Amino acid sequence: MEQRVSLVTLGVTDLARAKAFYEALGWTSGAAPADDVVFFQCGGMIVALWGRDQLEEDSGVVDTGGWGGITPAHNVRSPEEVDAVIEEARAAGGRIARAGAPTEWGGYSGVFVDVDGHPWEVAHNPHWTIADDGSVSL
Amino acid sequence: MEQRVSLVTLGVTDLARAKAFYEALGWTSGAAPADDVVFFQCGGMIVALWGRDQLEEDSGVVDTGGWGGITPAHNVRSPEEVDAVIEEARAAGGRIARAGAPTEWGGYSGVFVDVDGHPWEVAHNPHWTIADDGSVSL
Repeated sequence: MEQRVSLVTLGVTDLARAKAFYEALGWTSGAAPADDVVFFQCGGMIVALWGRDQLEEDSGVVDTGGWGGITPAHNVRSPEEVDAVIEEARAAGGRIARAGAPTEWGGYSGVFVDVDGHPWEVAHNPHWTIADDGSVSL
Repeated sequence: MEQRVSLVTLGVTDLARAKAFYEALGWTSGAAPADDVVFFQCGGMIVALWGRDQLEEDSGVVDTGGWGGITPAHNVRSPEEVDAVIEEARAAGGRIARAGAPTEWGGYSGVFVDVDGHPWEVAHNPHWTIADDGSVSL
């Protein structure tokens, strides 16, 4: 198995609402209004929004209804950018689980939770490198 | 917010066991035995393994103990590669939730579940492009 992730699918309960949330953050897709799945090209991978019930069945797992141990993160180039993204998420209707603040590992981060309960850490990690195309290197 | 994912963290209950599972799939990290987090460089992003309790607290969410609506996927270049990765996951101690089979969207996929209950779809999608470096395009 090559060392890479191709796709991360977020299960949602209202696809139009979820799509509108990510679009309010500035994301764009080629999805048509009647589509039952939305794909966002994210660098060399894809983020999808799909019905949580469908994703549960497709994944062969049991949905216990809350968070299940996976958190995506979006790294940015400065603490100020962390605060800016957190404010964008708040304006889009996200819940701010943790405002931007210095971390014990020497960075700065906050967390927003999307309209389906999925948390995103927004982080500035001065030990990692972000290339011009947004790719992140250890 | 730029349209990208920097990091996906998988919450685990036994870090050494989880690390050994992904290493058995062929993944490598620079983690030292005493580290409390393991980072895998995955193309232009990173996959981390970290204590599920710590991740729950850090993410500002409530862990309901099972799956929580997020499924990563690993796309490959042929149906045969799907079957090969599924067999690698089985040999590494994963549960096979769904054996490789044709899908209704014209591809071929299966699902393995890692040692912490996180499902991975393994898919061949003939409508998407996989570059030599493994990056995936719609």
